Amino acid sequence: MIGRLNHVAIAVPDLEAAAASYRDTLGAKVNPPQDEPEHGVTVVFIELPNTKIELLHPLGENSPIKGFLEKNPAGGIHHICYEVDDIIAARDRLRAAGARVLGDGEPKIGAHGKPVLFLHPKDFQGTLVELEQA
Amino acid sequence: MIGRLNHVAIAVPDLEAAAASYRDTLGAKVNPPQDEPEHGVTVVFIELPNTKIELLHPLGENSPIKGFLEKNPAGGIHHICYEVDDIIAARDRLRAAGARVLGDGEPKIGAHGKPVLFLHPKDFQGTLVELEQA
Repeated sequence: MIGRLNHVAIAVPDLEAAAASYRDTLGAKVNPPQDEPEHGVTVVFIELPNTKIELLHPLGENSPIKGFLEKNPAGGIHHICYEVDDIIAARDRLRAAGARVLGDGEPKIGAHGKPVLFLHPKDFQGTLVELEQA
Repeated sequence: MIGRLNHVAIAVPDLEAAAASYRDTLGAKVNPPQDEPEHGVTVVFIELPNTKIELLHPLGENSPIKGFLEKNPAGGIHHICYEVDDIIAARDRLRAAGARVLGDGEPKIGAHGKPVLFLHPKDFQGTLVELEQA
């Protein structure tokens, strides 16, 4: 069912410092920050030849990554995102297998303009999993 | 400098349950477990179209992931691995930029039979970074 690894998302306390470490120290292709107010984050996309890294920094009062950074003040990997062809079919298969879909189970439009869902970390070895319809 | 994302490594407390969740629930291509006694882990490789996920479980008394699982009993993402063309050149560039290379700085032969180094998580937003010479 799952296809490509779409991205690895890393929550960071200092977006400019994190972007500099990927750009200058690791020598990766780092894009300018983009505010995503409807998702409560500012994102820096790092383009690798086969996938993306997304640096996430809180934007606004109700950012979904605020709590994560309180628990992990240095930052850390927040989630991984796998692509699926059909997000509704994926959700129904996951639920039938006993996996918990976060929220009301209706896909939201994610940071890339495509439908996404998140799965409960307790069902996936402590890893928050995002599914994105490719 | 960094190239492809070679893999994302997830430390898991129950390798068979984790393999089943990727194989049966997420529908990914999951390979049989491989013991890597010289690295203190048993590994299950999950093949995605563009990269790999590696499920890691401790093997032996001195496993490098034992402490991680004590802190994160449900499991969690342990490290991410980027490919580089020349690991010595990469190490020297990183050190010149002030990044800390773990251990004695000499590349070890990693789980794929290629030279690897690990970088200090404090220099990379709380993320343990492995570099592998591709």
